[in-house]
Amino acid sequence: MKILVDASGGDYAPREVVKGAIKAAADFKDIEIALVGSKSLLHILAGKHLTKHNITIIDAPQTIEFHEHPVEAVKKKPQSSIVVGIKHLRDADGDAFISAGSTGAVLCASLFILGRIETIERPALASLVELNRSNPAILIDVGANADCRPFNLLQFAQLGEIYARHLFGIDKPRIGLVSNGEEETKGNRLTLESHALLKTSNLNFIGNIEGNDLATGMADVIVADGFTGNIILKTVEGLGDSFIKLRQSKSEHDGSYRLHGRALLADVGLGFLVKSMDFREYGGACLLGVKGNVIVSHGRSHAKAIKNAIGLAKRTAEGNICQKISELKNELNNE
Amino acid sequence: MKILVDASGGDYAPREVVKGAIKAAADFKDIEIALVGSKSLLHILAGKHLTKHNITIIDAPQTIEFHEHPVEAVKKKPQSSIVVGIKHLRDADGDAFISAGSTGAVLCASLFILGRIETIERPALASLVELNRSNPAILIDVGANADCRPFNLLQFAQLGEIYARHLFGIDKPRIGLVSNGEEETKGNRLTLESHALLKTSNLNFIGNIEGNDLATGMADVIVADGFTGNIILKTVEGLGDSFIKLRQSKSEHDGSYRLHGRALLADVGLGFLVKSMDFREYGGACLLGVKGNVIVSHGRSHAKAIKNAIGLAKRTAEGNICQKISELKNELNNE
Repeated sequence: MKILVDASGGDYAPREVVKGAIKAAADFKDIEIALVGSKSLLHILAGKHLTKHNITIIDAPQTIEFHEHPVEAVKKKPQSSIVVGIKHLRDADGDAFISAGSTGAVLCASLFILGRIETIERPALASLVELNRSNPAILIDVGANADCRPFNLLQFAQLGEIYARHLFGIDKPRIGLVSNGEEETKGNRLTLESHALLKTSNLNFIGNIEGNDLATGMADVIVADGFTGNIILKTVEGLGDSFIKLRQSKSEHDGSYRLHGRALLADVGLGFLVKSMDFREYGGACLLGVKGNVIVSHGRSHAKAIKNAIGLAKRTAEGNICQKISELKNELNNE
Repeated sequence: MKILVDASGGDYAPREVVKGAIKAAADFKDIEIALVGSKSLLHILAGKHLTKHNITIIDAPQTIEFHEHPVEAVKKKPQSSIVVGIKHLRDADGDAFISAGSTGAVLCASLFILGRIETIERPALASLVELNRSNPAILIDVGANADCRPFNLLQFAQLGEIYARHLFGIDKPRIGLVSNGEEETKGNRLTLESHALLKTSNLNFIGNIEGNDLATGMADVIVADGFTGNIILKTVEGLGDSFIKLRQSKSEHDGSYRLHGRALLADVGLGFLVKSMDFREYGGACLLGVKGNVIVSHGRSHAKAIKNAIGLAKRTAEGNICQKISELKNELNNE
């Protein structure tokens, strides 16, 4: 299995991405990692690890920056790490692609180069949410589609079900719909209509779930439009930051501020939850509904998050998720 | 000043409501509290405090339950604490009304009995969000309007500005719009159009704010449609619960589990943040845009939250918020 890694994407690229890739190559013996980025720079950074581990380099001298307009950037920069990486994925020279670069550019490049699976009207970003220790969940969509129709939310539920079945090894994942009240009659127009669709589907739909249910583990797949899902994810992230910062402001500055804050939290048994609220720690989101396994990692990803994202890419590729989504063609059409 | 308190509303009514009212009467010497509920029961519960403090009773033998349909319940139960209390507010026998009962019923009764301020198309619930210690904020709307038009969000910003000016004593509150990206081009249709309206208003609009900005204190007024605002508030609440529960599951059961969890968090300097994430602790949300000061407290309110809600009601009434909103008539019309 070969994982393509965007070595130029993210706030701490290429250094932290390369570090994360080396960690992943050391940990997951059965994968090959292809670093996509500036060949000369990557040779310097990866150095001896190239031969020691199973790491190769694919040259991509251009970089798409966060501030660039996604569509234009993808068109204007054919030699960018995102475009080159996704082209290799399309050409079957790789089983998955991960990037901590511009989410918008990754989405555009995926749609343009890989294309969407025909029956999926709107591919969506599915993120692992591990707020409940014994019951992790998948939140879908976390930002690919700001405006949605009820049918899109039904498809997100179906995509999430396939992913949850593989990642969590459960047969009938419990599907919850984010709303502003648990009653069927609560919601905005979108959720009210989506609720009705989900109810008549063959999914294991457990009904509406509220913001305060996210950490209870009551649902395996949490469905929301991309606007709402994104705000939930970032609210959680922001609170994680607050905890860490508050703790830091109370502690003595010892030169390793963040670690100090974290260590103290761990001491009182809160390390897990804060960690799970922190994007830098966990893997990333998978773009479901395009013809390829694409993982979007947080822009602020350090080596550990990159390593985790590579792990998620590996698990995703192993699950043949794209294949399973394609196979659902008829079932999805019938909805 | 007279505060009308719904003594029958909330999971722990009437006992905790009465306890909270007694605390408030003891703390805020300059207010009279009128408990609205079953006269005979309240006489037993409040007993000697009625004369000791400035507490009176208004008989309202009926109770609207959480599961009842708000509109029907308000119509069918004219003797309910919510309807009776709000009628007293309308008739100027009280300066504010607070309830931990059905939010829907309080909204309906407020609209039917008090009426909305003519220029305000959609009254909205404004909640204090104290995630940032030095910069509390007002989040509006937290659930009164699941579906909104851009003009509604502009009005929410204006309502929030008036409230923030009074509560925080600042001249030009910074207004932020919740969206899925800080750039002006990020958002769903509603936020994109609302952004354009806010930008051309005379408000101190600082642009979009993301979920992870909520705790940074960068905005004094955080504007969202009621669906999104509700989900943000409940997500925060749910995480607060998780912290407390996780801590509990790690600690020895000593018969006072919740306190134990809280005490430990306080010991490591996290008491403040968890407290601020917990609805049971803080006051409630103010319904802005109706002709009266109405405070909705959390259904799970214990005595302390009720006391805090009474404090918020007092501050709201002192600010003549309704009056100020009415005075903005022309300015609002001109938008």
